[in-house]
Amino acid sequence: MSNSLNRRKFITGTAVATIGAISLPQIVSAAFEAEKTPKVTLNANDVIVYQGDSITDWGRNKSETTPNSFGMLGTGYVYQSAAHLLLKHADKNLQIYNRGVGGNKVYQLADRWDADCLAFKPNVLSIMVGVNDYWHTLSGNYKGTIETYRTDYKKLLDRTKQALPNVKLIIGEPFAIKDVKAVTDKWYPAFDEYRQAAREIATQYDAIFLPYQKLFDEALKVAPGTYWTNDGVHPSVAGAALMAKAWLKAVKS
Amino acid sequence: MSNSLNRRKFITGTAVATIGAISLPQIVSAAFEAEKTPKVTLNANDVIVYQGDSITDWGRNKSETTPNSFGMLGTGYVYQSAAHLLLKHADKNLQIYNRGVGGNKVYQLADRWDADCLAFKPNVLSIMVGVNDYWHTLSGNYKGTIETYRTDYKKLLDRTKQALPNVKLIIGEPFAIKDVKAVTDKWYPAFDEYRQAAREIATQYDAIFLPYQKLFDEALKVAPGTYWTNDGVHPSVAGAALMAKAWLKAVKS
Repeated sequence: MSNSLNRRKFITGTAVATIGAISLPQIVSAAFEAEKTPKVTLNANDVIVYQGDSITDWGRNKSETTPNSFGMLGTGYVYQSAAHLLLKHADKNLQIYNRGVGGNKVYQLADRWDADCLAFKPNVLSIMVGVNDYWHTLSGNYKGTIETYRTDYKKLLDRTKQALPNVKLIIGEPFAIKDVKAVTDKWYPAFDEYRQAAREIATQYDAIFLPYQKLFDEALKVAPGTYWTNDGVHPSVAGAALMAKAWLKAVKS
Repeated sequence: MSNSLNRRKFITGTAVATIGAISLPQIVSAAFEAEKTPKVTLNANDVIVYQGDSITDWGRNKSETTPNSFGMLGTGYVYQSAAHLLLKHADKNLQIYNRGVGGNKVYQLADRWDADCLAFKPNVLSIMVGVNDYWHTLSGNYKGTIETYRTDYKKLLDRTKQALPNVKLIIGEPFAIKDVKAVTDKWYPAFDEYRQAAREIATQYDAIFLPYQKLFDEALKVAPGTYWTNDGVHPSVAGAALMAKAWLKAVKS
């Protein structure tokens, strides 16, 4: 039995008390291996676009147009993972764009998809969306359902695959850290349906799926929720590092 | 012969044309191994302070007081390396502070050292300073010499060791990328003396030395200077990633 299999077995077990013996980067590796997805190979001149909501956006300068720049990338998981790619693949002339917009739900991605995504002709497209599609229903101001999310998301991907038949898709799981500020009992089990929908859609569209919820659940065994997120939804620096580490597992090193 | 020894041998050779076969993270490893310095072990509740000039400061919010936060850490090599530490050592309750201030020379660190460094009682103190001590002499407005730099730096470290006898010191080499904007022929050989002084001081004070110049020189074999720096002095996202990768080599994983 390989080390990674041993690790996976351990992690899916119940030996919580000794989880500290395994480092979080190892936990990320194990969780990702469990997904058994193929990895993206980066080629010279590849264009990488990150799409999503505030978790993706995270402090980017909306008027910055230069790929790979500080203003373009923001300061969240996008910046952290992009920085690693720009170092590791320095010979490849990658062009990395962050087009996340705070507050976005799927239909709002759709509204700006032509200009803010397809026009960049990405070779690799990372999408993470869904927490607002659920969260914003709680205030009563947004009437979308899980079916809206599922239908809109599939339409968006149909449109994407039609415009960019060879695009490599990476889909991030919406996640929430229970019992930290915004995220209360009443989120469940409804929110879990959004996570499950994202996973199913990733499978249907041959996308690499990033199981963020599982990673945060594992991370909670090492440090409390407030260490990983500020409000249950938005990751801390450490939480963004966890996401970046996972994102990079989607790409061949 | 181990893989790492093989790598080091290769990198110190002249096979520039094939350098692309070795990834930059590997180059960082090899360069650092060549320094043969012991590594810092992080313990629970350790306080880590990063000190320096704009390269360290890099967009931090000066009114932010919370360690480990986005505003505290800025968006440069400090943020990138701290994010990794906060993930990897999530069980240790680390407290990480960025206290870099743009434009600082050594005497300006000294002016604010009590309140802005010693008061934090760091267990690990990272200092990177020197490029302004040279650069600002070119305008004629700053009259410090290499002797000023050396003397001021040693006084600062004497003071630090007196207040914090057990502090673990990390000293970053000042660096410049020649032929990118600000950095012209006239910097040399004068600027090299500052690099050499930082190295000698690191040895005298039992500090871990981070050979940034060597790393950027290697990185230039993979991508041009403008890929690594915006103006010859301030690193790009990729340059900050290179620095962070090197910084993390100072710490036991």
